[in-house]
Amino acid sequence: MIIISRKSQGIAAERELLHKFWNTGKFIAMRAPGSGAIKYPVPDLLVGNHLRRFAIECKTTKSQRQYLRSEQINDLKTFSDTFGAEPWVAVRFPDKNWYFLSLEDLDKTAGNNFVISLESAKRKGLFFEEIINSDPLSSS
Amino acid sequence: MIIISRKSQGIAAERELLHKFWNTGKFIAMRAPGSGAIKYPVPDLLVGNHLRRFAIECKTTKSQRQYLRSEQINDLKTFSDTFGAEPWVAVRFPDKNWYFLSLEDLDKTAGNNFVISLESAKRKGLFFEEIINSDPLSSS
Repeated sequence: MIIISRKSQGIAAERELLHKFWNTGKFIAMRAPGSGAIKYPVPDLLVGNHLRRFAIECKTTKSQRQYLRSEQINDLKTFSDTFGAEPWVAVRFPDKNWYFLSLEDLDKTAGNNFVISLESAKRKGLFFEEIINSDPLSSS
Repeated sequence: MIIISRKSQGIAAERELLHKFWNTGKFIAMRAPGSGAIKYPVPDLLVGNHLRRFAIECKTTKSQRQYLRSEQINDLKTFSDTFGAEPWVAVRFPDKNWYFLSLEDLDKTAGNNFVISLESAKRKGLFFEEIINSDPLSSS
């Protein structure tokens, strides 16, 4: 039996998305280094070209809902505002699809954190193919 | 005796520069992860705000000249063109200063690689304080 930690799963998911963006041939993508250094509020992935830039927090879950701490979302916002990027949350649910959610698509929890359900992701999220082809002017 | 590998020295230098940019409060900075993943042509550091973005190759040397392979420079160019960033080479010489060189400031070697001497860096390079305050419109 191979035990794969949640952290490794997260890194594997980030890398999967990194490869997908590079494979389009239209975007560069950069992962933030994991542990070791002093932590700065950087997103899991920074993706972009000279037209658009995405700061992406990546999550993968085996359940029907993905929670996000409010600090993570605040950091993502601050980074995106400073750098000039669009903040996105990418979640891979058990259906194996990646859903791209804008921050307004997330629901607040009672404890002021955030949550996105698979059902809600299906309704509001963009697929990978949609985000790489979407029009920057109509995206917000 | 502590042996510090050239690789660790390189990472320490990248981190030093990373901290310097964050400490300005005006830029975000992101290091590319070291080993482990498939290698994509990403710079050592990506630094920026909504006005300017720098793709930076960092080097530190104990000698009077720093060599750079042509592939490194080509990768830096390709990344910068695709992402929309200014390509820079940052070298820390034994005088401990960081010099920021644009690609035109590098000299070609006989083998079609690149080199920058301390003397030439002093003449052509920008100091850290200059690069963070320089005007994007007059920088090229």
